[in-house]
Amino acid sequence: MKVVQVVEYHKDLKLSDSPEPKITSPLDVIVRIGAAGVCRTDLHILEGQWAEKSNVKLPYTIGHENAGWIHAVGDAVKNLSVGDKVILHPLVTCGLCRACRDGDDVHCEASEFPGINVDGGYAEYLKTTARSVVKLDEALEPADVAALADAGLTAYHAVAKAAKTLRPGNVCVMIGAGGLGHIGIQVLKAISGATLVVIDQNPAALELAKKLGADHVVQSGSDDFVTQVLDLTKGKGAEAVIDFVAEGGSTATGIKMLRQAGNYYVVGYGENINIPTIDIISSEINFIGNLVGSYNDLAELMVLAAQGKVVLHTTKYKLDDFQKAIDDLTAGKVRGRAILVP
Amino acid sequence: MKVVQVVEYHKDLKLSDSPEPKITSPLDVIVRIGAAGVCRTDLHILEGQWAEKSNVKLPYTIGHENAGWIHAVGDAVKNLSVGDKVILHPLVTCGLCRACRDGDDVHCEASEFPGINVDGGYAEYLKTTARSVVKLDEALEPADVAALADAGLTAYHAVAKAAKTLRPGNVCVMIGAGGLGHIGIQVLKAISGATLVVIDQNPAALELAKKLGADHVVQSGSDDFVTQVLDLTKGKGAEAVIDFVAEGGSTATGIKMLRQAGNYYVVGYGENINIPTIDIISSEINFIGNLVGSYNDLAELMVLAAQGKVVLHTTKYKLDDFQKAIDDLTAGKVRGRAILVP
Amino acid sequence: MKVVQVVEYHKDLKLSDSPEPKITSPLDVIVRIGAAGVCRTDLHILEGQWAEKSNVKLPYTIGHENAGWIHAVGDAVKNLSVGDKVILHPLVTCGLCRACRDGDDVHCEASEFPGINVDGGYAEYLKTTARSVVKLDEALEPADVAALADAGLTAYHAVAKAAKTLRPGNVCVMIGAGGLGHIGIQVLKAISGATLVVIDQNPAALELAKKLGADHVVQSGSDDFVTQVLDLTKGKGAEAVIDFVAEGGSTATGIKMLRQAGNYYVVGYGENINIPTIDIISSEINFIGNLVGSYNDLAELMVLAAQGKVVLHTTKYKLDDFQKAIDDLTAGKVRGRAILVP
Amino acid sequence: MKVVQVVEYHKDLKLSDSPEPKITSPLDVIVRIGAAGVCRTDLHILEGQWAEKSNVKLPYTIGHENAGWIHAVGDAVKNLSVGDKVILHPLVTCGLCRACRDGDDVHCEASEFPGINVDGGYAEYLKTTARSVVKLDEALEPADVAALADAGLTAYHAVAKAAKTLRPGNVCVMIGAGGLGHIGIQVLKAISGATLVVIDQNPAALELAKKLGADHVVQSGSDDFVTQVLDLTKGKGAEAVIDFVAEGGSTATGIKMLRQAGNYYVVGYGENINIPTIDIISSEINFIGNLVGSYNDLAELMVLAAQGKVVLHTTKYKLDDFQKAIDDLTAGKVRGRAILVP
Repeated sequence: MKVVQVVEYHKDLKLSDSPEPKITSPLDVIVRIGAAGVCRTDLHILEGQWAEKSNVKLPYTIGHENAGWIHAVGDAVKNLSVGDKVILHPLVTCGLCRACRDGDDVHCEASEFPGINVDGGYAEYLKTTARSVVKLDEALEPADVAALADAGLTAYHAVAKAAKTLRPGNVCVMIGAGGLGHIGIQVLKAISGATLVVIDQNPAALELAKKLGADHVVQSGSDDFVTQVLDLTKGKGAEAVIDFVAEGGSTATGIKMLRQAGNYYVVGYGENINIPTIDIISSEINFIGNLVGSYNDLAELMVLAAQGKVVLHTTKYKLDDFQKAIDDLTAGKVRGRAILVP
Repeated sequence: MKVVQVVEYHKDLKLSDSPEPKITSPLDVIVRIGAAGVCRTDLHILEGQWAEKSNVKLPYTIGHENAGWIHAVGDAVKNLSVGDKVILHPLVTCGLCRACRDGDDVHCEASEFPGINVDGGYAEYLKTTARSVVKLDEALEPADVAALADAGLTAYHAVAKAAKTLRPGNVCVMIGAGGLGHIGIQVLKAISGATLVVIDQNPAALELAKKLGADHVVQSGSDDFVTQVLDLTKGKGAEAVIDFVAEGGSTATGIKMLRQAGNYYVVGYGENINIPTIDIISSEINFIGNLVGSYNDLAELMVLAAQGKVVLHTTKYKLDDFQKAIDDLTAGKVRGRAILVP
Repeated sequence: MKVVQVVEYHKDLKLSDSPEPKITSPLDVIVRIGAAGVCRTDLHILEGQWAEKSNVKLPYTIGHENAGWIHAVGDAVKNLSVGDKVILHPLVTCGLCRACRDGDDVHCEASEFPGINVDGGYAEYLKTTARSVVKLDEALEPADVAALADAGLTAYHAVAKAAKTLRPGNVCVMIGAGGLGHIGIQVLKAISGATLVVIDQNPAALELAKKLGADHVVQSGSDDFVTQVLDLTKGKGAEAVIDFVAEGGSTATGIKMLRQAGNYYVVGYGENINIPTIDIISSEINFIGNLVGSYNDLAELMVLAAQGKVVLHTTKYKLDDFQKAIDDLTAGKVRGRAILVP
Repeated sequence: MKVVQVVEYHKDLKLSDSPEPKITSPLDVIVRIGAAGVCRTDLHILEGQWAEKSNVKLPYTIGHENAGWIHAVGDAVKNLSVGDKVILHPLVTCGLCRACRDGDDVHCEASEFPGINVDGGYAEYLKTTARSVVKLDEALEPADVAALADAGLTAYHAVAKAAKTLRPGNVCVMIGAGGLGHIGIQVLKAISGATLVVIDQNPAALELAKKLGADHVVQSGSDDFVTQVLDLTKGKGAEAVIDFVAEGGSTATGIKMLRQAGNYYVVGYGENINIPTIDIISSEINFIGNLVGSYNDLAELMVLAAQGKVVLHTTKYKLDDFQKAIDDLTAGKVRGRAILVP
């Protein structure tokens, strides 16, 4: 089958021919790839940034946001049939450790990450297990949702966690209305009655935020944008700040927007959280870490997608045109998310 | 009545005569002081560290850990009688704001803090309101519990929050077995089945920790004390770290002891939390701020005290000997907590 | 001032003249009534059904769903000004007991209930306390919201409790789309992403339910309506059933619609819950009682009303025309809720 | 190997020879049985009470409370080694359905129940899967804990659920200090600071309850035993009632002991819960169903057992003497729990 592989770091990806994956264990599942998201992480892999962490042996196939159709299943797989439309949770988890058994499979003690440390979805077929497969509603196609498998799932996970504690009249500030943020906006409006304030430096992103349901938008960068946000909270600050950026100073200003006893959800990364402990205790605020969502989170996000409550903008490229997708992403020319399709 | 007042910053406290407080509002309560804790914060007040924050007008009476007997009550106070033994929550709260109405009275939007920004308990009588009064069990005397009103309450609040998420087999690390820590140890053992590891640099504190119920103790300062703690968690880290110190590098080492998805409870203060956001998101850890406990927290702590599950070590001084208490505290000569009694 | 009073059970209400209430305690508040809901409970009061429970002395003024403008406040009331538009929580609570201090003021150990056991709002003025007053947004008028003070608040309380555990893809069944139900529908859609199935025997009520956002409606009474509901849940049953009826057999059929580990919210009343304990334990289902909401619940409901997310249909009557309102309600002629206005 | 089987309902069990089970799937595990609990349910199976529900084909091997040593494992089992001491969760679950993935494996949509609907542990060897195996601490032997696998696990599950909401000063009433109750008492004291009141009709059971840590015991049956319990709660009722009996009128009296907004945990079964909905809503009480605990619950219970906080009394019988164990249990002659050992 066709695969697109990393052959060497700091070199271009290469289209190769590779044997199709085979079922070797009763819970194995082979998926015919219908769409694979092209993610900024893929660029970082090529730059060698993940080489040490993943310890993967080259060449290997990348692509960690995958959806498609069931091609073959192992003997023990009863809940899936050949031809089913599916999206794949990014991790392959053990199902046996305490974390897996607590619904917290992201912290599985023995997981694999296709596209990062084993072969991924820039390919015609991908091997995973029944534990990673979410069936899609009839209304959805693999290409519509593939890019929700990782980026969208992360946004959903953080927003759903925040929504649990938000009540009508509470204010939630979201920093960043880009790839994750524009999903986060749609999710919050779908599952919560809280008032949503979205911050971004890009006017076009704020316009989209408004269209997707933000109650208020504030452009960052001006001298008084923190004050503008505080004014929307009667000067008291927001019950929740969800930071999809966490670089370029966003945490320092974001913390100023937080109310006494508020929660600061860290989703993006780049800079340090650097705050005096006296400020943490005197205002009794919390910092909440967020990684990608669980399998059940993905299943819930797919429900919202099927109901039309979460919609993703995508630009499609043929698998053979992978280089153009990579080039466009590098050049900032992709509208929405880039997707490779067969 | 006798009162001990701050007359000028950077000068000694002064014993004076002052008119007894009077009932002026139907929910007012006058308490005859039975015991007032002498706290390190009192030293900081004298050093002027609180001058700007409290904005209190000198002279005024300090003392923010108070217990005693009801001396007089306003017309609307139905649940208290003259002579009742009581301990006082450190804050006087409004009962009307959203926080007060959510059981989170510590974040009251209009509170006063006797001993900090209005007259406190280094005196024969103190004025407060019915909202701040917790009745004591027959088994308890004011002098036994006064110092639980602030320091003990803070420890209870943080530990009770942690205990909610701790299950048998989970590990809780406490950093610091001093004033707050030795209460925290007793509270955790009384309300949780988690395994408790206590860290302190002082061998005597660790010996006390063992006696009070710590499952394991580790002396900090050695090259490998973090490894020693990790070894007690099979290398995975603790589900909770409660940091009663938060200075001298305790947060940097404390974070290393935390498990994936673990909670770091900040109680002490002094240094900064300074951590890359990628470390927060990749391990999905949380930092939880902790201020003093609520009124209901204090009521619960008094139940544990009445049941003999939480015991405080104290050294008593006559109110007239306030200077000796202050001097002993400054010199580090007080065993347990210093208490002023009539 | 004009008041409408119960003078004798089983007799008509009577319009009388009565002295205006006066401030007698610093937290007292006098409200000029702008609207008072006419509720089926008022009919039951006249029938003497509450005589024993309330133990109220006749004559007295009824009316327990009240909104209006601040007319006078006691010395200690800082957060309200004369002229403020307000709605009143139905209970006057103490603010001192453990329940009040836990945000659970409905279970106050020393509450009064204006309109039930003390004078209520079928009058020009009503006396309450600062603890019961929720300020209205500029966008709202007393007559728009008065009937949310009790009936609407009860619906909000139950639905908000259910929404906490409902996730996208979960199914919530509501039994009854009448006075409480039509508010419940709007609340659930505003704060949750769950799928909503509404059951009623009245086709007009179901049509309204659809318009207000119900995802599916099922007419009760047919042989197979339980099966119709189960079919909407792939045969597994709903994660939550909210029963606004609880009479005429609704609990027996409602329980059949519940999924393993599901929650049955009892809001209406009339019949018994009568179920073998083996059915409770083998399916591990829960029955959750619901009384009226807390003060904070009412504040949140007013946010949804101000945002236009919850709208109440009302028919207005002049206070002097109270008898016509009562007659119309008795005859089932009121569209939406009847409201007395000055 | 030797097995003890049901050959016909209403007939004695029969010792037979049967082939040893074999590994057929990569997650399979064969356990050499070290102890199998003899449970009242086994008597009910023989009486045919489970025939219809389990639909099991005779003959088959009973025994659903099993512990022992790992004898063989499938290829995919990495976390267990031959010789490991283990206890078995009573269910074999799929690990793929939403319930399994939420930590709620008891509601697995495709589970088996060895000893009930497939071959169980009255045998030399038992086949299960890696998902059902909890490793034992060195300090524990299979015969010490086997009977905790079902009865003990049920008690742990209910008590841990209750403990989550109980705070110091709250009262928990347990009805029944027998097989489940005497475990429940030890669990509550190990993980909670609540005050425990135990009710039983048997003075010997109450004496044991006291020894195991009950704060108060009340003998049921007398005219005023409900009043005695209420007196222990200042007349207000208990925050939680855990009913291990639920027959012979225990629910009717138990509900009277419940406080406003209290939780009634149904664990035992036999009679109906039959209560007017007005009583549920006016006191806003909840009824909480409880089935057996999850895998993680069992792991936590084994921690408490290893720490010596939960101890089970047992009487051992050789597997060959199974009939005597059955006879003794039928005759009420077993002290503690009967256990079959090789």
